[in-house]
Amino acid sequence: MAKTKPSIPKGTRDFGPEQMVRRNFIFDTIRNVFGKYGYMPIETPAMENLTTLLGKYGEEGDKLLFKILNSGDFIDKVDPTLLKPGNSNAISLEICEKGLRYDLTVPFARFVVQYQNEIVFPFKRYQIQPVWRADRPQKGRYREFYQCDVDVIGSNSLTNEAELVLIINEVFEKLNIRTLLKLNNRKILSGIADFIGHADKLIDITIAIDKIEKIGIEAVNAELRERGLDDVAIGKLQPIIQLQGSNEEKLAILKEVLSTSPIGMKGIEEMEELFRYIGAWGNLSTTVELDLSLARGLNYYTGAIFEVKALDAEIGSICGGGRYDDLTGIFGLENVSGVGVSFGADRIYDVMLQLNLFPDSLSSTTQVMFANFGPQEIAYCMPAARKIREAGVSVEIYPDPAKVKKQFEYANRRKIKFMVIAGESELQAKQLSVKNMETGVQETITFENIVEYIKSKL
Amino acid sequence: MAKTKPSIPKGTRDFGPEQMVRRNFIFDTIRNVFGKYGYMPIETPAMENLTTLLGKYGEEGDKLLFKILNSGDFIDKVDPTLLKPGNSNAISLEICEKGLRYDLTVPFARFVVQYQNEIVFPFKRYQIQPVWRADRPQKGRYREFYQCDVDVIGSNSLTNEAELVLIINEVFEKLNIRTLLKLNNRKILSGIADFIGHADKLIDITIAIDKIEKIGIEAVNAELRERGLDDVAIGKLQPIIQLQGSNEEKLAILKEVLSTSPIGMKGIEEMEELFRYIGAWGNLSTTVELDLSLARGLNYYTGAIFEVKALDAEIGSICGGGRYDDLTGIFGLENVSGVGVSFGADRIYDVMLQLNLFPDSLSSTTQVMFANFGPQEIAYCMPAARKIREAGVSVEIYPDPAKVKKQFEYANRRKIKFMVIAGESELQAKQLSVKNMETGVQETITFENIVEYIKSKL
Repeated sequence: MAKTKPSIPKGTRDFGPEQMVRRNFIFDTIRNVFGKYGYMPIETPAMENLTTLLGKYGEEGDKLLFKILNSGDFIDKVDPTLLKPGNSNAISLEICEKGLRYDLTVPFARFVVQYQNEIVFPFKRYQIQPVWRADRPQKGRYREFYQCDVDVIGSNSLTNEAELVLIINEVFEKLNIRTLLKLNNRKILSGIADFIGHADKLIDITIAIDKIEKIGIEAVNAELRERGLDDVAIGKLQPIIQLQGSNEEKLAILKEVLSTSPIGMKGIEEMEELFRYIGAWGNLSTTVELDLSLARGLNYYTGAIFEVKALDAEIGSICGGGRYDDLTGIFGLENVSGVGVSFGADRIYDVMLQLNLFPDSLSSTTQVMFANFGPQEIAYCMPAARKIREAGVSVEIYPDPAKVKKQFEYANRRKIKFMVIAGESELQAKQLSVKNMETGVQETITFENIVEYIKSKL
Repeated sequence: MAKTKPSIPKGTRDFGPEQMVRRNFIFDTIRNVFGKYGYMPIETPAMENLTTLLGKYGEEGDKLLFKILNSGDFIDKVDPTLLKPGNSNAISLEICEKGLRYDLTVPFARFVVQYQNEIVFPFKRYQIQPVWRADRPQKGRYREFYQCDVDVIGSNSLTNEAELVLIINEVFEKLNIRTLLKLNNRKILSGIADFIGHADKLIDITIAIDKIEKIGIEAVNAELRERGLDDVAIGKLQPIIQLQGSNEEKLAILKEVLSTSPIGMKGIEEMEELFRYIGAWGNLSTTVELDLSLARGLNYYTGAIFEVKALDAEIGSICGGGRYDDLTGIFGLENVSGVGVSFGADRIYDVMLQLNLFPDSLSSTTQVMFANFGPQEIAYCMPAARKIREAGVSVEIYPDPAKVKKQFEYANRRKIKFMVIAGESELQAKQLSVKNMETGVQETITFENIVEYIKSKL
């Protein structure tokens, strides 16, 4: 066997202990909040059948699926005339049946349909698992990354949206990240398109609204003209592009402008109800703002749209989602409405690292280390180590009777707070010496009192 | 887009909420114990380069690797003369660069070598992640399953083995599984082979030892003869095959028999030191037994070998491992000794389910549900729901103002303990009614006292 220079596939990452402790802090926080709102965990396999995945993410998405090669004599089953350059796509479908999941949404839809007879609806689930995309790797974009999805399916009620707002608020409050939550509603956007007679220009309109603060009204209007809107439509759009004020003021203006669009008015009504519920929660740390430029996943969402930005870091959205009305239709279960959001754990990690928001208590794992002076001494220490662990304290025994200097160095690099020392004199006196590695203070304790002593000092 | 009948690849599984809660109980228990012994978490990518994986698991293992098809025009890069039936293996290496990890051991070795300059040795790590094998699926054998590995690398000391025994003891004590821990030592086995002059027959010998209780000494000897051992060798083996008594008694006999084999005597010495440490821990719930028939991973382990069986369930081993002396050599880092064990989460799950060992407290997630009588009533409830959650209680709000019967049914199926009811009369009186769904008792509480009331009843 040849020696292999160790490396990992591009776009993937190893996580060492320090990163793991921080990542787990984020995951645990999110998981605890989800649980407190009655959402229940599920997990699906890393591999799904390609029939489940293909065609769900558009043509571009299909290309980004990682496909798994069939086992055995896969090539024997391919029509030999297919086997030639330029045919990669067709061949891939002959030699691969499975792919790695691309997101958690499609597996969730598949799950709901597959187990529809066992599930109690409305079904509230969360799912925290990695996903894989054959994207070109770049800073902050990975080929393997975690998604943290929370969805409720089988209920149209806007209390679900209101609960999600509270979940978002609580997660980021617990993580100490100041956030802005942008809200929009697909029905309001449809109403706007109706009203100006350009249903096909929805994306252009939201892009224009998004740019108003940066480039000003003249430039926005010029751009809209370039994008094919006529002057009548642009004229009608003016009060919407220049919409300002509080959420209530914005909704009041929209109500006047869109009064002739039933779908627009429905969207406004939904938004008003949602804001009423949000008001009922009491004070939130996150700022909630109606933002008509918010258009993520437009061909997918049918009602509320959510997006969260960190206020103190320059980074894309750290959480987003919305309401969809036909997620499960593709698998044969029609007319089931759902709403959910996804937290971007990797970006949240980057924000917290940049803003130094991880608690200091996360940095160290082991609290007490027993120094090793040989087999006899260490056997003497073992019952004490066991008793301290039983008290819930993390303890390690330095495995080798190495030089004391080396053992101290190890304890320091691992940031271990207490070193327990038991040499010949301690053995004879039935004692243990405990050194506080931060202060340098060393005390001698009887064997019986070691647990109480350590607990009192931690 | 065609409708797809939902299914998952054979050998893979979905986990619903009930399974997830139980699985997380197992993982959390294992993780907490590992942490208390100073082991630190790492994670590696699901995909490794095939150069990392190939040749590490034998020819059979190579066939069981799931390979990931290269993206883009993969077929254009293959020599066209290769592209014909019968050539699957050669082609697979041309069109795949990556594979799914097959275990956690090889990625760990790769990790240690790759980051050797940053790691503080001895390096104590644990890793709990899924692995994938293209095995033929059957009852209890899956193509995706979790491994929970704990290893220390960079230390020869037997205190590490002793710590692993205590970890095994504590994990299964916490999971309430009665276990037998079998111990062996590769050096003793080598000594036996030395002594009878049949180094090549090590596996045959351990199989024979394993069968003595079932088929008796005559049949075992006959089988050894069939397997090519001569009468002299079989004669020499008799005291070893018929080894009985306490661990101390067995070691005493072995010491006499193997007195001329330096490697055998070294193994006995190691075993004696390990038993001394195990004795120093104090009472253990797991029974520890020297078992010479234990030979797992024989071409891999160099010292101690561990295997754990559940006493009250008919199932294979639920934990196993041993010491290895050249795990990282394949990646260019020589002479680093390590020892570790792997817990089989899926089998542990099966044992606990079969023996009904999961705590009852795991069964339900949400503790309190607010019934929904309409937008106004639910807005009234929202601040109360928020306050109860802030007290750490899981709460959900039934999203739709559905018929009361339907809401009760939902609460019952979800096994929710308390239902909070706020209709018109409660709103006017600034009260809330709380129904205990188990006893049927319903009480009326003032809005201010709801948190205290719920906390006192849980």
